Amino acid sequence: MVNSETLERFDQKVQELLWSARKQTIELMNTPLKVDTKSSANDLVTNVDRQNEQLIRKRLLEIDPSARIVGEEESFNHKIDPDLNGNVWIIDPIDGTLNFVKQRDHFAIMVALYCDGVPTLGYIMDVMNKRLYHAWRGHGAYVNKLRLKEPANSSLADSLIAINGWQLIKNHCHQQEIAQQAAGLRMYGSAGIEIIHVLNGQLGGYTSRLKPWDIAAGMVIAEELGLLVKTIDDQPLNVLSSNTVLVATKKVCQDIWQITK
Amino acid sequence: MVNSETLERFDQKVQELLWSARKQTIELMNTPLKVDTKSSANDLVTNVDRQNEQLIRKRLLEIDPSARIVGEEESFNHKIDPDLNGNVWIIDPIDGTLNFVKQRDHFAIMVALYCDGVPTLGYIMDVMNKRLYHAWRGHGAYVNKLRLKEPANSSLADSLIAINGWQLIKNHCHQQEIAQQAAGLRMYGSAGIEIIHVLNGQLGGYTSRLKPWDIAAGMVIAEELGLLVKTIDDQPLNVLSSNTVLVATKKVCQDIWQITK
Repeated sequence: MVNSETLERFDQKVQELLWSARKQTIELMNTPLKVDTKSSANDLVTNVDRQNEQLIRKRLLEIDPSARIVGEEESFNHKIDPDLNGNVWIIDPIDGTLNFVKQRDHFAIMVALYCDGVPTLGYIMDVMNKRLYHAWRGHGAYVNKLRLKEPANSSLADSLIAINGWQLIKNHCHQQEIAQQAAGLRMYGSAGIEIIHVLNGQLGGYTSRLKPWDIAAGMVIAEELGLLVKTIDDQPLNVLSSNTVLVATKKVCQDIWQITK
Repeated sequence: MVNSETLERFDQKVQELLWSARKQTIELMNTPLKVDTKSSANDLVTNVDRQNEQLIRKRLLEIDPSARIVGEEESFNHKIDPDLNGNVWIIDPIDGTLNFVKQRDHFAIMVALYCDGVPTLGYIMDVMNKRLYHAWRGHGAYVNKLRLKEPANSSLADSLIAINGWQLIKNHCHQQEIAQQAAGLRMYGSAGIEIIHVLNGQLGGYTSRLKPWDIAAGMVIAEELGLLVKTIDDQPLNVLSSNTVLVATKKVCQDIWQITK
């Protein structure tokens, strides 16, 4: 168990850490990128992903020496320990690396803390828009210093939604029908950026197959705003495995589960 | 024929007009929107579309009393006169109205001048990012006062591309195969915003079924930057009819035409 004073200190220090990681990212964008591929030609990693992960790991261990850290770049080729006991920090040093490389925009840096399995602290840094979305479970969700309001509980027919392109083409879990029942379809190419649009009420929902570092931070912030984070067929989420995740308003979830169940 | 001095005066005045239209849009966003539907539940028009079109029409007629004006809201229910003789101004007072209503972001205001059928002046105002993309044929393309460079001539495999969601689901013109050959798929929901990403080299191409007001301005700016604007199956574009348009690098066009022809 982590007490409230400790979480308040963590929250303060991790916000500072995210602004440092943003600064490092902007500086490195002015130098030539080193780009490598991982599982496929379009699964990229750059020196910035690696340097951000190093910076975040180092600082997290200073802030919380008991931290167990699951980071995209170090964990990518390893089986993730499914144990959620204690303080598990989950980090994505650059979310939307393909956007980062091809667009120099529409990417994020994400950090989350799960305490004994409970989503507790979440941070999504929208680097180019200079906006840090953050939440401490039970203490409200914010963008920079502004408190976010709960988005309206819109229905699927009244909402724009985001769906992963490859899953849509394969019509995974009836996603073409979901898209056709929505007001419109969007794809931004970064889980963090897509979840930010749900937090702001600009999308009614977002679904994609996601790894732990893609969803951990968004789950904390979304739940704090009354949004649901489940699987696309209404199963509870195990944050340390891969799932086809749905982050959406309650009404959008109900409308989608009528299609997928 | 319009001489160069006249076009220079037009260009100056129309840039001022776009900034006025942006100002009016931002002011009206702070008052309740009046939203009506057009052809379907998700084909929207607001008081802002109508008031912007009125403002732009009135000012264009002051700037160019010979103007024939094709605007989305007045032309929507009418057959468009296919005559391109003289000065034809084509305007989209809010491009991406669904984004404007649901997201308050990711929409544009667009104006173009075709002189005896020649794409001559083009303007895309990215309202929320405060960026006016503009070109005068033969005189370079700019964002605000900064001259744009020609984007790299990337191939489809090396590019992110944007495709209209409904056409993708129906696999119109082999679009699913096109998407699968690209590095990634994006959908922003506004032709203006999607074309801006192609101008900036952030997308290698964009395809969608477009009306005259969706493509007229983008065509001027894209051609000025060495991009191609044709139909998805390599036919020349008639700007006053509806087409499945492709705005892309030369290499992306060649790669896509191999699939569609």
